[in-house]
Amino acid sequence: MTVAAGVRRRLGKDDEVVVLERGTWTSYSACGIPYWVAGDVDSADALVARTPQEHRANGIDVRLGAEAVAIDPEARTVSVKDGDPIGYDHLVIATGAEPVRPDLPGIHGDGIHGVQSLDDGQVILDELERGPQHVVVVGSGYIGLEMAEACVARGFDTTVVERSSTVMPIIEAQLGDQVAEAMKARGIHLRTGVAVEGFTLDARGRVVAVETDEGTLPADLVILGLGVTARSSLARDAGLPLGAKGGIVVDDRQRVRGFSDIWAAGDCVVTHDRITGDLIHLPLGTHANKQGMVAADNLAAELLGQEPRLTFPGVVQTAITKFCSLEISRTGLGDKAAREAGFDPVVASIETSNFAGYMPGAGTMTVLVVADRDSRRLLGAQIVGAEDAALRIDVAATALVAGMTVDEVVMLDLAYAPPFASVWSPVQVAARAAVKALAGS
Amino acid sequence: MTVAAGVRRRLGKDDEVVVLERGTWTSYSACGIPYWVAGDVDSADALVARTPQEHRANGIDVRLGAEAVAIDPEARTVSVKDGDPIGYDHLVIATGAEPVRPDLPGIHGDGIHGVQSLDDGQVILDELERGPQHVVVVGSGYIGLEMAEACVARGFDTTVVERSSTVMPIIEAQLGDQVAEAMKARGIHLRTGVAVEGFTLDARGRVVAVETDEGTLPADLVILGLGVTARSSLARDAGLPLGAKGGIVVDDRQRVRGFSDIWAAGDCVVTHDRITGDLIHLPLGTHANKQGMVAADNLAAELLGQEPRLTFPGVVQTAITKFCSLEISRTGLGDKAAREAGFDPVVASIETSNFAGYMPGAGTMTVLVVADRDSRRLLGAQIVGAEDAALRIDVAATALVAGMTVDEVVMLDLAYAPPFASVWSPVQVAARAAVKALAGS
Repeated sequence: MTVAAGVRRRLGKDDEVVVLERGTWTSYSACGIPYWVAGDVDSADALVARTPQEHRANGIDVRLGAEAVAIDPEARTVSVKDGDPIGYDHLVIATGAEPVRPDLPGIHGDGIHGVQSLDDGQVILDELERGPQHVVVVGSGYIGLEMAEACVARGFDTTVVERSSTVMPIIEAQLGDQVAEAMKARGIHLRTGVAVEGFTLDARGRVVAVETDEGTLPADLVILGLGVTARSSLARDAGLPLGAKGGIVVDDRQRVRGFSDIWAAGDCVVTHDRITGDLIHLPLGTHANKQGMVAADNLAAELLGQEPRLTFPGVVQTAITKFCSLEISRTGLGDKAAREAGFDPVVASIETSNFAGYMPGAGTMTVLVVADRDSRRLLGAQIVGAEDAALRIDVAATALVAGMTVDEVVMLDLAYAPPFASVWSPVQVAARAAVKALAGS
Repeated sequence: MTVAAGVRRRLGKDDEVVVLERGTWTSYSACGIPYWVAGDVDSADALVARTPQEHRANGIDVRLGAEAVAIDPEARTVSVKDGDPIGYDHLVIATGAEPVRPDLPGIHGDGIHGVQSLDDGQVILDELERGPQHVVVVGSGYIGLEMAEACVARGFDTTVVERSSTVMPIIEAQLGDQVAEAMKARGIHLRTGVAVEGFTLDARGRVVAVETDEGTLPADLVILGLGVTARSSLARDAGLPLGAKGGIVVDDRQRVRGFSDIWAAGDCVVTHDRITGDLIHLPLGTHANKQGMVAADNLAAELLGQEPRLTFPGVVQTAITKFCSLEISRTGLGDKAAREAGFDPVVASIETSNFAGYMPGAGTMTVLVVADRDSRRLLGAQIVGAEDAALRIDVAATALVAGMTVDEVVMLDLAYAPPFASVWSPVQVAARAAVKALAGS
């Protein structure tokens, strides 16, 4: 919808902009679903940035319940289920992502839900209304963590099963352990190093247990937090190029590689990592929005014979979440990813207060940085800590894009006043530790 | 003390490190004084990072009450009041800054205090214990604002007099107006556009009123918040080079220009602005600490015949404070400073929520950015807003050092999750507004 809206704003009145949406919602925040389920947000409507009616008022022909089932790039047509094919001059694919559903016995049973759409959110809310005895969340990434918190906050017996030996595999184990402690303290049953092998269903096909390599867990509601893959079967069937996790391969103008009149943006595409150059699938709203803006700019410029202005430069894999009062964030490469990318990483971590230690209420945070031994370049950073800790990752994310060394990070002119920070900002304290580690190595 | 401690750690036991301190305190946070006066911090001791005893235990010969009164760079000696001269191989000047006391009638009366040392803090606390009827704060910069808040929080009738037409001249007027509103809402009497012309003293030499170009303000306690100048008469008398506001001129290794064995760091030196290259006096603890580290590294390296590792790269004038619940921060150049530096600035400002608008408790903030029309480079940013607003300035401060354009800021991969941020981070929303302003101009 970002693309449609962006293009609509720039085209003349005679140009048609049609959006095919197989569901009933437009322009909503999937990231807000756990907070809706938790009860922090009143209703699904609050998560909708713009309704179909609003888009129509802006001159976009939004067709709800219209499911595109095939693309013919030669004929420039899209087939619609139970409808006539539609011709196009330019096509934008924004089919998003879908929760990973591993091919395990019983996976399609009732009561086993992913979390991606507002409909998913409503289904889970309905399930919780029925009062499940045992909720099992599979996976301890962001969604797993947020959904587990939502369920336990509503008073349900909640177990998180994680295949890795620590929670949140995208942060280093030493930080994951802090998150694990917080989960246990909140009353979540945490089972790490446990692999799910299948689901036992009752006679009506409803889940009653999760089977693992360490025994059976009773469960009448299962939430899948195993990440998502691109929803790209439509693109694949049309012969479009796919990359990691099925993401459609686009150039930095969001044009599908090899197809001059097909564009794609959001959770259905791959993007490149700005540090390694690797093509990765990183489905986050922040990238989807930027990509949509870039696609709209380039598509409109092409139609209008103007110079396009925008390119999408890729990502550094910044992410943030909160578990109860514990804030968690990361950016760039972890130790393992850095090694895999051919760097010789040095990892340093420190514990510091989130503002001047003599001020009342100062909490602590752990900041970990990864630096390259050879170039001294900052490669990544991770933070776990109390209030006001996690957003500090943005300094590291900006420094990563700028290619700064840890020495340069130490000398940044960051904000300091007693209610906000110590005289050395936490990311700088960690960068100093990295400098020390580099000297000692 | 940072320099002494840094040098001490690296030298052999036979090398003497002597510190002359005319007062009784070492290594304290001057920035914490307003919070001590407000009662948020229990005692002056809490603001002391390291006591003279602790420094002595680390092998530093700290001499309290020892006032250096002259430096002889030829003879390499320092004269001490009521003591024998001391010879040196290397000299470090860290004499700090002193509050500006304009040459006005009555300025030296009792009850008129600057805020720089812990002794100043104690004197003001003692004054407040006596229960003044009318406190007048002269100046509405950081210290003026913080001290006014402290006084009004303790129940005293408090007036702030500011010569400019808006408060906090280092932020743009439109943001200063928000701060002014908050001050008035807190019960502070604010008099902007009013120049202080002198102080009326009673028979015993104690202040009873502040005279202004708009009449007399009764006052039995006056706090000067007019900034500070370098305390550099010692350096000046020794023939050392001085720059803006009396700051000692040093190179990027903190060596005094033209004097191979004299170093200086902290509030007594000038530093260069990383955007304009200008030499400026910017007395903040965050710079003082870094400069101390740099001076120690270079001095020790020289004594040990090693390669120095550190240079101080200058500043981008980042600053932050809080007035009640209103957070205020800035970095880089404002509109006027940008023009004076030869840029053709475009200023754009936006109002946004500090996290996803649908989350409970989302507050608002105003973010203003300054960009150069020609190069599209980010030149500065300013933020005024609710909780969690001001620290976001660090992204802009980092981007400034990296020389990023506003277009590059828009495409940064910053952290996003509903409890922390909207999908476009506030600094990016403002950068987008700047991009739009650049297109329209």
